[in-house]
Amino acid sequence: MLMPPRDIPSAAVELIDRVRTRRPRVHCITNAVAQTFTANMLLAAGAIPSMTISADEIAGFVASADALLVNLGTFDAGRRAAVALALEVAADRRLPWLLDPVFVDRSPPRAAFARELVAREPRAIRLNRAEFATLAGAEPDGAALTRFALDTLAVVAVTGAVDLVTDGARLASLGNGHPLMDRVTAMGCAGAALCTAFMAVEADAFVAVAAGLAVLGIAGEIAGASAAGPGSFVTAIVDALYALDGDTIRERAKVL
Amino acid sequence: MLMPPRDIPSAAVELIDRVRTRRPRVHCITNAVAQTFTANMLLAAGAIPSMTISADEIAGFVASADALLVNLGTFDAGRRAAVALALEVAADRRLPWLLDPVFVDRSPPRAAFARELVAREPRAIRLNRAEFATLAGAEPDGAALTRFALDTLAVVAVTGAVDLVTDGARLASLGNGHPLMDRVTAMGCAGAALCTAFMAVEADAFVAVAAGLAVLGIAGEIAGASAAGPGSFVTAIVDALYALDGDTIRERAKVL
Amino acid sequence: MLMPPRDIPSAAVELIDRVRTRRPRVHCITNAVAQTFTANMLLAAGAIPSMTISADEIAGFVASADALLVNLGTFDAGRRAAVALALEVAADRRLPWLLDPVFVDRSPPRAAFARELVAREPRAIRLNRAEFATLAGAEPDGAALTRFALDTLAVVAVTGAVDLVTDGARLASLGNGHPLMDRVTAMGCAGAALCTAFMAVEADAFVAVAAGLAVLGIAGEIAGASAAGPGSFVTAIVDALYALDGDTIRERAKVL
Repeated sequence: MLMPPRDIPSAAVELIDRVRTRRPRVHCITNAVAQTFTANMLLAAGAIPSMTISADEIAGFVASADALLVNLGTFDAGRRAAVALALEVAADRRLPWLLDPVFVDRSPPRAAFARELVAREPRAIRLNRAEFATLAGAEPDGAALTRFALDTLAVVAVTGAVDLVTDGARLASLGNGHPLMDRVTAMGCAGAALCTAFMAVEADAFVAVAAGLAVLGIAGEIAGASAAGPGSFVTAIVDALYALDGDTIRERAKVL
Repeated sequence: MLMPPRDIPSAAVELIDRVRTRRPRVHCITNAVAQTFTANMLLAAGAIPSMTISADEIAGFVASADALLVNLGTFDAGRRAAVALALEVAADRRLPWLLDPVFVDRSPPRAAFARELVAREPRAIRLNRAEFATLAGAEPDGAALTRFALDTLAVVAVTGAVDLVTDGARLASLGNGHPLMDRVTAMGCAGAALCTAFMAVEADAFVAVAAGLAVLGIAGEIAGASAAGPGSFVTAIVDALYALDGDTIRERAKVL
Repeated sequence: MLMPPRDIPSAAVELIDRVRTRRPRVHCITNAVAQTFTANMLLAAGAIPSMTISADEIAGFVASADALLVNLGTFDAGRRAAVALALEVAADRRLPWLLDPVFVDRSPPRAAFARELVAREPRAIRLNRAEFATLAGAEPDGAALTRFALDTLAVVAVTGAVDLVTDGARLASLGNGHPLMDRVTAMGCAGAALCTAFMAVEADAFVAVAAGLAVLGIAGEIAGASAAGPGSFVTAIVDALYALDGDTIRERAKVL
């Protein structure tokens, strides 16, 4: 039986504070659609993003980073080579990294590449229900999540109306969020980047990912309360993340 | 003599409703400057965007899409190969596709490539006056538009202060819009993407394109009424498109 | 001894007016993270941006541009080739160009490439303190700035809480700005693009760069006064730049 997480809200308060104070460097291999919003969300949280995907220089950036995000939003020979170089450096430096296998349900070669990356031991994997079904070969219920986490040795986060996070021993269910989050591009990518920033300042990846998703969901709720639509929502969630304080996190967090 | 379009405003009301209900998948080959705004405009309208331009996987994305946008905002050997693969799949699946030959007036090799694509029978072509003059070899008056539409077998939309849309038999003149639309990057690209989403749910491409441009222009007018400048305009037009209702479309539409 | 600049605020008023009237074409070789915001800032100022980085067509775009920005935010073999072609055309046409050697402190190969570009005689170089230290091999004090400007024959602008601009004979110290400018991605890139637009309408690059940075800083102050956080700040600085008038520039400019 899975243990419930004891205090994800308190961890979220502590970790956003660490990110703001330590200003970790997060290198992001991500797609062009997501880059600007991801960079602005990381900056709003207090992290320092870098985004190069050039094979000629990615090793240097990863070597001076505190955590690494690998998002498969675009996939080609060049990007694949950059990922391989980045993961070599990450492994050498024992840098935490998170895999975001975007749209593997739409592209068989991308799914095959994602499976290779899963074998390279990401500290965490974030995906939606359809992406989970493609990679894990099963619907994302509790048993399938546990098995996938134990098989991959990664923290697994399946995001949706409710986010589920597990490391195979612990399971957190996160109920914060807002429907407009699905009407904005790159929201999931930015959430994964936020979790990566939290992993840069917290060795327990389960706690880091659950706290990161809780913070994203709470910022989304605050933004949704004032936004007139998805355009103003994009602006408002960056502002909300920047201004988020500990009391608000504790009051609003819906963690089971 | 060209027939006037009977009821583009009613078609616009019907088609935005279909996009919101059916949530068509629109694959976009577009430039990095335009990707994020285009994705957010499609999501605000109710469509599901995908954006990969990788030759390794574009076929899979186009095969599971409902319509295809080919925007020439960037042009190189890799992009050219991706376009070729995408058009093969589109032809096999009889998928509607729209060509947006951005900046062909600034780059002779891009114009040459655009001419090759025109010969591949896009269902629609959207361009501004300078781009039309480059591709059609004539100023965009009614006669030149009709001839170009008949030559290419495509719906031709020349956008500007007034948008002209023709299939060679019908001509619509659309007067909605706002001056700030010219002060924001990728507005034309996003408009072309919206027309592509409408083509995904309406077989008559003339009606789909005219309705799509009318909807864009009306959303622009609403956004312009509240915006303090081009920054807030970007936010406001996404919100306006998301909230647009049938009565507003019917009241505001300026279609001749 | 360096001469103080006589009237940068008046020059700023004059140059923003020229940009709005003449609408110069600014070709930007810049990274995907910065492209959209840079394009929107240039459009808000009145300039016409183009952004292709394809080696197949960059020569045509540069040949019809009025100034060129080379930002090293991404660096690979393809990009390097595009830069080489662009600089050839720029040299032939005596087009002013500005170098923005982003993150050279994080990547030795990028620093080596930046040194090659410095030798190609950019009219101006914009960098932050860490980037200056990497390229000039010294902390950015007045003496080091003067020496670097005389060595490179370029106007050198080191940006930060206070921006310093020198051509080796004149030195301007610019005190406008807002802390949120550091919490938004691509703000420095957009500022460099604005300086490039000013160089398109003003032959004295020292005056153009100092005026461009003054305008950016003033727009940032105005935006910061109304913004709720970095999200709304992005929107507000575009609006502020678009609306900026001569009286506001003269009243607010902090130039020493």
